[in-house]
Amino acid sequence: MTKDNTDKLALEKLNQLGKELMDQLDRKEAPSLKIPSRSRSNVEFDQEKEIIDITGKKSTRSFINASHVRKFMQTLLVAQASEEYIKNGRTVGKRELYYNLKHKLTGTNRNTWDDDDESSAVIDDLEAILDIPRSQLHISAKSRGSIYGDITLKQAGDEFSCKGLGKGGWAIPGNVEDVEIMDYNAERILFIENDAMQSRLIEEKAYKSLNALLVTGEGVPPRGVRRFVKKLSEETKLPVIVFVDGDPYGFYIHSVIKHGSMAIAHINDRYSIPRAKYIGMTMDDIDKYELHNVTEHLDKGAREKLKHNLSYEWFKYHPEWVDQMKKMQKKGVRIEQQALANKSLEFVADTYLPEKLENEEFLP
Amino acid sequence: MTKDNTDKLALEKLNQLGKELMDQLDRKEAPSLKIPSRSRSNVEFDQEKEIIDITGKKSTRSFINASHVRKFMQTLLVAQASEEYIKNGRTVGKRELYYNLKHKLTGTNRNTWDDDDESSAVIDDLEAILDIPRSQLHISAKSRGSIYGDITLKQAGDEFSCKGLGKGGWAIPGNVEDVEIMDYNAERILFIENDAMQSRLIEEKAYKSLNALLVTGEGVPPRGVRRFVKKLSEETKLPVIVFVDGDPYGFYIHSVIKHGSMAIAHINDRYSIPRAKYIGMTMDDIDKYELHNVTEHLDKGAREKLKHNLSYEWFKYHPEWVDQMKKMQKKGVRIEQQALANKSLEFVADTYLPEKLENEEFLP
Repeated sequence: MTKDNTDKLALEKLNQLGKELMDQLDRKEAPSLKIPSRSRSNVEFDQEKEIIDITGKKSTRSFINASHVRKFMQTLLVAQASEEYIKNGRTVGKRELYYNLKHKLTGTNRNTWDDDDESSAVIDDLEAILDIPRSQLHISAKSRGSIYGDITLKQAGDEFSCKGLGKGGWAIPGNVEDVEIMDYNAERILFIENDAMQSRLIEEKAYKSLNALLVTGEGVPPRGVRRFVKKLSEETKLPVIVFVDGDPYGFYIHSVIKHGSMAIAHINDRYSIPRAKYIGMTMDDIDKYELHNVTEHLDKGAREKLKHNLSYEWFKYHPEWVDQMKKMQKKGVRIEQQALANKSLEFVADTYLPEKLENEEFLP
Repeated sequence: MTKDNTDKLALEKLNQLGKELMDQLDRKEAPSLKIPSRSRSNVEFDQEKEIIDITGKKSTRSFINASHVRKFMQTLLVAQASEEYIKNGRTVGKRELYYNLKHKLTGTNRNTWDDDDESSAVIDDLEAILDIPRSQLHISAKSRGSIYGDITLKQAGDEFSCKGLGKGGWAIPGNVEDVEIMDYNAERILFIENDAMQSRLIEEKAYKSLNALLVTGEGVPPRGVRRFVKKLSEETKLPVIVFVDGDPYGFYIHSVIKHGSMAIAHINDRYSIPRAKYIGMTMDDIDKYELHNVTEHLDKGAREKLKHNLSYEWFKYHPEWVDQMKKMQKKGVRIEQQALANKSLEFVADTYLPEKLENEEFLP
């Protein structure tokens, strides 16, 4: 979708919401909103769509209910502001929105909100009500991470390439809804956990030798990066290959990229990429590439994370993931991406990744 | 300095180090290294240079001292590897170096090192011995942060502009030693704490209206970003204006940019920018711009940080900083950059920054 189309859709949805409330008033009903329940108990793994989703359960937020009225007001406050942001072509951060809309309510000594937990919850609610990601309401995510590769993008009237940028890439902004893909020459998107590994692959000119767009979210990717890769993958149809540390955190990052997160279960379908594949690191790599001397001990936090992973439905859904977790538990070690440097600096770009890509040696 | 020159200098220094050790052996002396002491007790604020520095005190690391020999070996291991990295035109991350050089010592069951605290300490030692930043030894910092503005850079054979990149900028890589400035059109460098504020200023096209290069290190800037701005400021002679939250962390970030940090006191002169100025946020902004309703309570952590700040020599050196800390302590509040959105989204770009720049309303 182009920027104009997403803006148009968002405005339509916001107008529809306003219209419904006006209709209720016309019918002399108390205005109320139907809000899909985002509570953890309402989150489930949808095996058909292969995403972490919410069930259909909804709650009602009513203007004339004393315990609802504050949140009701806040919801409309954000809806109204979003309309304004879209019309003015501005995008705000969450924290910026919090400050932008914080003010004393007329005739009272009370604020619209007192901390940004309140505004954040309402932004999530509005996403769930309208079924569009917050970025389409012009509320942006944290800008972090970058892309390097042979792709030409267009945003805000600028057309630019993501290669030929020295050793850095294009810094992925917090809102990518209006990014258009003009042209690209790549066979895959490589979603890399560590920025240092991306740096290695940039230096080895792996974008060329692996025909890959090199993206990193610098650890757990923020929403902006996930939305960006989701858009890339949808519009180019390129496979998404996830390259993370062989540890409970790496697998968790992969699970978030592939199936989404519990925190945004109400809108995961706009972020998650069920067909993403896991290239490494795996527990089997340790034997295959003789990396025994560069494993690291699984500490207490990692062991806890591992147990949590094993308890999730979407982990149990993949016997290959469970197998990796069990091997990790048994060996008591983890293996980082950068441990491959023990073979040689170029090993990852010259041997490890090309071999696995060639043989399609992936986990789901 | 161009890349070739910094490489040449580093190789000369490494060779000199090797030559000294060889000379010692020729003289039948036990090989030993003189290492500037990096211990906290050896750190002081140099009022003349206006940087946090180490005193001249040195310690000796000897090959024939049983408690030195391991570190001695590690120091030479990194020196040797650096030479190789430079000659091969490769740059490694700290963690990558750790793995790259971890191996069993011949004829023993012991590793060159067992965790990266060991390799990190030795990298710092080598910086201190050779008096060049690790990036010139081709050991790079974390890549984080970005720049947006009217400047053309060259790195790794690529020439590129840092404007015309949509809503993102150029992702600053972990090593910027070989970045050349080809051309620029700006009157100042604006060093911004929060990436969301940089996004706001990019959206408002403030690089044009403020004639500024917009740089963010996303919080406490990593070494790569500091080194980048240091290079920019030295080669362009542009003023560096720091724009951070009005809280103990914001002031601390400013102090690190301006005077350096205790952690790398042995090499601060390659990172710190003593002539950097502080534009905001200040405690006085709260009254001047009527921001009382959007201050935040100083929590316990912030109060502790504030007390630490007040105990530092380089804070006491600036009565204006002490004054701000005292006001903050008295009011018990902090004021974030983004709180300016309470006036309007464009206020920061249209009013706040232009007014302060026009009137040169800075703290040191």
